[in-house]
Amino acid sequence: MTDLHIRPLDGAAGAAAAARQGQLVKPPGSLGRLEELAIWLAGVTGAERPQVRAQVVVAAADHGVAAEGVSAYPAEVTAQMVATFLAGGGAVSVLARAVGARLVCVDAGVRADTTGLDVIRTGLRPSANLATGPALARADVLTAMTAGREVARAAAAAGVTVLAGGEMGIGNTTPATCLACWLTGGEPAALAGPGTGLDAAGIAHKAAVVARALDLHAPAIADPVDALARLGGGEIAVLCGLALGAGEHGLGYVCDGLIATVAAALAVELAPALRDRLLAGHLSPEPAHDVLLRRLGLRPLLDLGMRLGEASGAVAALAVLGLAAATHDGMHTFAEAGVSTG
Amino acid sequence: MTDLHIRPLDGAAGAAAAARQGQLVKPPGSLGRLEELAIWLAGVTGAERPQVRAQVVVAAADHGVAAEGVSAYPAEVTAQMVATFLAGGGAVSVLARAVGARLVCVDAGVRADTTGLDVIRTGLRPSANLATGPALARADVLTAMTAGREVARAAAAAGVTVLAGGEMGIGNTTPATCLACWLTGGEPAALAGPGTGLDAAGIAHKAAVVARALDLHAPAIADPVDALARLGGGEIAVLCGLALGAGEHGLGYVCDGLIATVAAALAVELAPALRDRLLAGHLSPEPAHDVLLRRLGLRPLLDLGMRLGEASGAVAALAVLGLAAATHDGMHTFAEAGVSTG
Repeated sequence: MTDLHIRPLDGAAGAAAAARQGQLVKPPGSLGRLEELAIWLAGVTGAERPQVRAQVVVAAADHGVAAEGVSAYPAEVTAQMVATFLAGGGAVSVLARAVGARLVCVDAGVRADTTGLDVIRTGLRPSANLATGPALARADVLTAMTAGREVARAAAAAGVTVLAGGEMGIGNTTPATCLACWLTGGEPAALAGPGTGLDAAGIAHKAAVVARALDLHAPAIADPVDALARLGGGEIAVLCGLALGAGEHGLGYVCDGLIATVAAALAVELAPALRDRLLAGHLSPEPAHDVLLRRLGLRPLLDLGMRLGEASGAVAALAVLGLAAATHDGMHTFAEAGVSTG
Repeated sequence: MTDLHIRPLDGAAGAAAAARQGQLVKPPGSLGRLEELAIWLAGVTGAERPQVRAQVVVAAADHGVAAEGVSAYPAEVTAQMVATFLAGGGAVSVLARAVGARLVCVDAGVRADTTGLDVIRTGLRPSANLATGPALARADVLTAMTAGREVARAAAAAGVTVLAGGEMGIGNTTPATCLACWLTGGEPAALAGPGTGLDAAGIAHKAAVVARALDLHAPAIADPVDALARLGGGEIAVLCGLALGAGEHGLGYVCDGLIATVAAALAVELAPALRDRLLAGHLSPEPAHDVLLRRLGLRPLLDLGMRLGEASGAVAALAVLGLAAATHDGMHTFAEAGVSTG
């Protein structure tokens, strides 16, 4: 990752946007976070009056650790859901349409044959069971990260200004929780959550699997790429690369829930300047998500109890980001409106 | 108000929507409040797969109490802002366009001549200074409420399913805070907030004006209509009637900030069944807003630090409500998608 160069925010564009906000026909600050978002997006894009041209990226992979019984769903669901996303029937499909964003899917190691599906291919295979050995080879992680960076590069070339990253992978809150524990020093019992629907016993079992994996792997982990190899998964590595690519190519990046956020947090470990280009789309009920957002110093935009993944929370946040850009661009100034300023 | 009949939610439609949510291709409950909103909207509209056809209503009025120096802006701004809304340049204008909602404005007692503006007229005059006498005559309150109910009736007849109510009126957080204190028993010093931009001294002055008004009027207030007459204002009374009209005509009603919410809370005093048709769009930083939402038992959808009024927070919430309806209607079921349910 020595070739990583994160583009800093454009301070002049951010300042111009802040000045414009002060002239719009409203009391200063009265649109709250909509104002902050518009100024952030100006810095991200380098435009005083930025536009949200969003692309949603869902990376999908299967996980050997699913054999430990850490999910309420069978592993074949991963590929079925990717097909559903592309057919327009998944939550993220509908949400992306509603906010006017293009949706692309990345096969980051789906077990079933995805030939015939319009996915971006990485050549990756499903991870091995991290409870008994490394999930991926280090070379596979680098392949996945490169694929994610390439998706971001292509999006930027197509005029996209904001990426929203999410995932599909039965069992993947387990590797994500492992990574969150490694990154933050949190305890598995405190950070393990229900995922898509475990009961208390299921959560306790998941926490035990996470603890076992950490005992096995943590001593051998030297850096975030090692962590992704031993404790991660293909979609998490793709999302880590996607966030880095957003930083490299001057895009904003909206984090979804736990899994996308731990990927972004690892990306920030590799390239701290990336943090300024991140927006926390929402807060999920997974305890590790809140811990990661606090570590990153990011305040989630929405808190709607969403815990689906698929980038669904990030795409919901795009709706609010769109309102921020629309008011910033479309409102009249006091002078244009002929309104007294007191 | 003896002719008020609030339409109860359609329990069968709500149950059918809940059943549909259980069949959509996601873990049960994983879309969080988006699921709750879709089920609520089904009950509101009587349709298993409801549509958001929204109208935004901004009621505007001037206030005699502005003479007490309770606002950071001069009173002529009220009419200037109404003109700006109609010209498409206000925050609410842009937000309504962004969510595909029609915007209508009601002149509920604007001091300046609004001839030539495309507003709904009520014939009301600005309120008198509530710090020294009643703000309005009781007959004026009833006129305003009837006007609000008529706006809701016309909207329902035009196919609208959801109303979002908001206001414009320099000085109007003062009457709204008076009403919130009367309704909840809260102390003026605890409930008075910055409005559109008062400093600490300004807030203390506003609290003193509120306390004086309550001392003067509270003993004579027998019911919510009296409260609106002595402590309210034209736009607050119109919004109270608008919320009641939403209830009468089977619409959903999205509350904006403090002023719209106190109007809705008074409407609930008059017709408790209305509460089920209310959605708290957002939480504003005005302390009285949180107190009112807790009294109503409503959980705000957004918390973005918005404190503009104009229905801006309610219209932002419409964007999320639209996502809820879109996912509810557009997602495939497990059976349609051919996805295993475990």
